[in-house]
Amino acid sequence: METIKWSSGVVITVDQTMLPSKLVYLRLKTPKEIAKAIKRLSIRGAPLLGAAAALALAQAAYRSKAKTVNYLFRELTRTAAIIKTTRPTAVNLFNSIDTILKEVRDYSGDARSFRTFIIKRCLAMVQKDAEVNAELSRRGTKLISYRDTLLTHCNAGELATVRYGTALGVIMNAHRQGKKIKVINTETRPLLQGARLTTFELRRKKIPTTLITDNMVGYVMQKGMINKVILGADRILTSGHVINKVGTYIIAVLAKKHRIPFYVAAPTSTIDIEGSVRNITIEERNSEEVLEFQGIRIAAKGVSVLNPAFDITPPHLVTRIITEKGIIAPTPKEIRSVLK
Amino acid sequence: METIKWSSGVVITVDQTMLPSKLVYLRLKTPKEIAKAIKRLSIRGAPLLGAAAALALAQAAYRSKAKTVNYLFRELTRTAAIIKTTRPTAVNLFNSIDTILKEVRDYSGDARSFRTFIIKRCLAMVQKDAEVNAELSRRGTKLISYRDTLLTHCNAGELATVRYGTALGVIMNAHRQGKKIKVINTETRPLLQGARLTTFELRRKKIPTTLITDNMVGYVMQKGMINKVILGADRILTSGHVINKVGTYIIAVLAKKHRIPFYVAAPTSTIDIEGSVRNITIEERNSEEVLEFQGIRIAAKGVSVLNPAFDITPPHLVTRIITEKGIIAPTPKEIRSVLK
Repeated sequence: METIKWSSGVVITVDQTMLPSKLVYLRLKTPKEIAKAIKRLSIRGAPLLGAAAALALAQAAYRSKAKTVNYLFRELTRTAAIIKTTRPTAVNLFNSIDTILKEVRDYSGDARSFRTFIIKRCLAMVQKDAEVNAELSRRGTKLISYRDTLLTHCNAGELATVRYGTALGVIMNAHRQGKKIKVINTETRPLLQGARLTTFELRRKKIPTTLITDNMVGYVMQKGMINKVILGADRILTSGHVINKVGTYIIAVLAKKHRIPFYVAAPTSTIDIEGSVRNITIEERNSEEVLEFQGIRIAAKGVSVLNPAFDITPPHLVTRIITEKGIIAPTPKEIRSVLK
Repeated sequence: METIKWSSGVVITVDQTMLPSKLVYLRLKTPKEIAKAIKRLSIRGAPLLGAAAALALAQAAYRSKAKTVNYLFRELTRTAAIIKTTRPTAVNLFNSIDTILKEVRDYSGDARSFRTFIIKRCLAMVQKDAEVNAELSRRGTKLISYRDTLLTHCNAGELATVRYGTALGVIMNAHRQGKKIKVINTETRPLLQGARLTTFELRRKKIPTTLITDNMVGYVMQKGMINKVILGADRILTSGHVINKVGTYIIAVLAKKHRIPFYVAAPTSTIDIEGSVRNITIEERNSEEVLEFQGIRIAAKGVSVLNPAFDITPPHLVTRIITEKGIIAPTPKEIRSVLK
């Protein structure tokens, strides 16, 4: 399954808000439609956001009537600005845009060939995400043992990427190798990406899957039911801090207490070279996501809500980070080594 | 607000599955109706289960046409057996029944006066729950400081008791004293007792209340937003282990890590004198509670579910236990001292 693809200027992607009950494909024709789809989480998952951002730039070029290279580049930066306002935490989105803008900035040629060049470059970035995830899945599999039960959180699967997935990529690969693994996954409130998306992906591959609510992660570890934790990341700092779906920090603290290895699987495009814990923006989402469920109010009137989408896990709780360039410790030295 | 009361053989109680959208009172006429209401969680909360069990025995006596003391006592034990099959973990239910049966067992007199004696004894037990909670709330308040922000989990309020509540009793009392406290409470999946019941109770008293999902407890502690944790218990072992709503163990581990005091508020009727960690039954509830929300399926087909209603928090994570007889350390010696 390809989660996102390009078809003559149209971006075709799964509407992730409709799963698991319906597998609906969206046909997004403009960067603004892509931005809206990102904001409402029809498109989500750090690597997929990077790919969607690249495709928005491709669309800007595809639709452009610019007569000069300069004008087309200005159109591109305007689209970049729109996409950058959608979601603040997953760094892949910013990395993707910045890489493309940097690569095309000094283009010399006419507007028409520039247009082709931009589109080609953007599609190459999308293709690269699939390759990178295939490679990190392959590398990560050696960490998985025969008959392991793995805990995962949120969705770091094919649906969070162009193809293959990150944490679920490793799991799928281990399964294909006949390692007879089982997965326990959290439902991941408030938007239930675990219940809706991860169970969908795992059951398609017939991997034994047990769903728990987020407050049961302590129970399953206490019972000795978990051998390893493996999950994705929305941003990894060079200090080794991992920013991922809210609840990840809890799982990391408990894994440490129960001496369970805690693995983060993420492409190097998830690494933020400049950020530090002090200046990270943790996206605070709409309170209705917590107060309502399928449109039904679940709490009394007059309550406030906190709805941070992410939390920060410090490096001492992270056993290893699985990237396409190798499995590394969460240290500045090793993180920088995979960026070369 | 009285959560449960007796009116000429009818047990009148709040249907807790309908809150916060509707405040509906049930009129339960037979012990079987009470048992059903307990099973579907219309009646829930450890102390309230103790009271409901007592009222079921009162009803058995009230409805009895027994001509002899022996026959009436047999009817009573049959009702006791029905109520004991409803929910296995909250010990108050068992303690309540066993205490009453023991007290009335050696009654000498005629069937008619025995009937009156039983009812009186049962109603006294219900009345005692209110008094005990008022007293533990009063005692616990000294642990709460001016402008504290308290984290609570599930519902240990008036709705979980006959009156006053346990953890929320302490919170309400501190609020009445003008301590300007705030509360952050978890929604408590799968059945959302925190979102539905705790926010309802706190907002009735105009206490500033912020709702979070269960996976945000790490985030709020990491941000330094919590001064103290206070919650209830479904069973406390003499070893100091606290059995409470699933997720309590996670909160305790994180509180310890962040050096946040972790208080358990529970009447001495929650203490299990005989049980040990090895032989506690953790109730495993229906998988639909996790797989569906208001009848809407939220996960893919073919997934398994774990749905333990409780987890076990070891004594080294518990700062103090607040009982009506005093605030104690979670040690066998101190726990036994309040049982005298």
